[in-house]
Amino acid sequence: MKFATLKDGTLDGRLVIVSRDGARALPVPHIATSLLDALQRWDAVHGRLQQASDTLNAGAAAAAITFEPHACAAPLPRSPQWLDGSAFLNHGRLMEQAFNTPPIPDFDTVPVMYQGASDDFLGPCDDVPLPSEADGIDFEGEFGVVCGPVPMAATPAQALACVRLVVQVNDWSLRALGPHEMKTGFGFLQAKPSTAFAPLAVTPDELGDAWRDGRVCLPLHVLWNGERFGQPHGGEMNFSFGHLVAHAARTRRLSAGCIVGSGTVSNVARSAGSACIAERRVIEKIDLGEIRTGFMRFGDRVCMQARFEDGRDGPFGVIDQRVVRPG
Amino acid sequence: MKFATLKDGTLDGRLVIVSRDGARALPVPHIATSLLDALQRWDAVHGRLQQASDTLNAGAAAAAITFEPHACAAPLPRSPQWLDGSAFLNHGRLMEQAFNTPPIPDFDTVPVMYQGASDDFLGPCDDVPLPSEADGIDFEGEFGVVCGPVPMAATPAQALACVRLVVQVNDWSLRALGPHEMKTGFGFLQAKPSTAFAPLAVTPDELGDAWRDGRVCLPLHVLWNGERFGQPHGGEMNFSFGHLVAHAARTRRLSAGCIVGSGTVSNVARSAGSACIAERRVIEKIDLGEIRTGFMRFGDRVCMQARFEDGRDGPFGVIDQRVVRPG
Repeated sequence: MKFATLKDGTLDGRLVIVSRDGARALPVPHIATSLLDALQRWDAVHGRLQQASDTLNAGAAAAAITFEPHACAAPLPRSPQWLDGSAFLNHGRLMEQAFNTPPIPDFDTVPVMYQGASDDFLGPCDDVPLPSEADGIDFEGEFGVVCGPVPMAATPAQALACVRLVVQVNDWSLRALGPHEMKTGFGFLQAKPSTAFAPLAVTPDELGDAWRDGRVCLPLHVLWNGERFGQPHGGEMNFSFGHLVAHAARTRRLSAGCIVGSGTVSNVARSAGSACIAERRVIEKIDLGEIRTGFMRFGDRVCMQARFEDGRDGPFGVIDQRVVRPG
Repeated sequence: MKFATLKDGTLDGRLVIVSRDGARALPVPHIATSLLDALQRWDAVHGRLQQASDTLNAGAAAAAITFEPHACAAPLPRSPQWLDGSAFLNHGRLMEQAFNTPPIPDFDTVPVMYQGASDDFLGPCDDVPLPSEADGIDFEGEFGVVCGPVPMAATPAQALACVRLVVQVNDWSLRALGPHEMKTGFGFLQAKPSTAFAPLAVTPDELGDAWRDGRVCLPLHVLWNGERFGQPHGGEMNFSFGHLVAHAARTRRLSAGCIVGSGTVSNVARSAGSACIAERRVIEKIDLGEIRTGFMRFGDRVCMQARFEDGRDGPFGVIDQRVVRPG
């Protein structure tokens, strides 16, 4: 199943099921008022949602409308929690050099994760108002999972079984503010403005073989102002989503709808390019001896889309955003 | 006005207005379904809530019921964001010694703040299930504010004007997990299980002169297993709540209902005692040469209540919680 949320002026938006080809959308207010509502009552509504999805994919849903990604909010415009890991160790090790911060203890055996704001997510085509270009405006291409209720102290296997949906994320970052916040030990806050999501949240079966070992095994294609920036592959994630969700639930239960992110997708092979500017900058410094790429300017666009290995569009749709001065 | 939320099986609970003496409660479902609903429509409902409060305090509310703190959830059982500062520098400096972490840069000029989970708060008398005594179970007595919408990049004065309610907080902490999470730079996550709140969220005018300079100028009395533990005074806060809220809103807007905490209330004078165990332990080490106090055990209780300077009960009611093994 593929889900999207249309903007309708409410905090949780209007749930639609989207056809596998991304062309048609079916409102299902008689089943669930919002995606959050569906996640909170998943066992009770799952069968009827699947039935509606099957009808839509069979071309037999009379109430279906054209699916408009530009009308979408994030699949969950607000969620109970947004927890973002740093599960691609290649990225983390490069960022230590970029930020000139000390090595993170036990980085390759214990996941690191920060708690982000989850009350005000951006939709896939929303403009991104930020206060200053001097803050070092950067995108971060990621994958994530949306969970059902996770009990405290769940094992990675139990946690993985709680995954309901898979999402694609742009975790906006302000690089000039990050190093100071890391040095406080209290973690990212000002360095992480509102996070954005691709339009479609999908059940893992929509990924087919690309959902394996608790990972999204797809390349994430990133364009900056229309130019190729990278297409790192999600299969290189060093911790599975089961590990990440279990880490998040070690000392507290997670309520239905919590989102756990992978951190920036990143590959050891330089040919993959990068999914954020800060990583390219530190690679330039290492490989070329100097930083050549600046951060984003007002008016810049970033476009992100996962693709299947055979080149078909991935299941999540497209993130296409523009950075703007605050209104 | 004083607000409380009765548990009713819903995520946001049932809003009641509580009389100034804390004896009577008036359900107001015709005005707002929950405290979060009221905060989201504050300008539209504020006058009617004030009128209902006045009627209740005049003894003229026929629908009033006995107020039962044990039936209370947190005033906001879930909120859009929970952001906790460390605005008592005395506490922060002692904790650097307790955790053996490097000095936080610009600690006395720039607030530090972590993003906590806000989807699953504990009520004032709720048991606290935690996985292990070995995690170093600790309480943290704090004050906090609940905001209306705060625009991105608000000044401290603008931010202070967005404060709607004042609350009293017990920010449960697991001290064995904190130092590692600080060293990752990603901030507290496993070290911060669900946070608890005193039953009453109050408009600043309920504090009278004790709400001044954006601070709660009241002592916070803390008992551990019935024995006095400390009564540090909130007036010694080094950053005002206006400063803290502005810090939180530097690069993103805050939606109505966000809660910003002071961090552990702490005074330079040793006679004030402490509002968390970790602080007492490091003081013992400094003053006595050895740590004499252990962390909490299953079955232990903590009780916290602000009091007015003349000894009267403070406006927030009592936090009275017991740590238990997970069910």
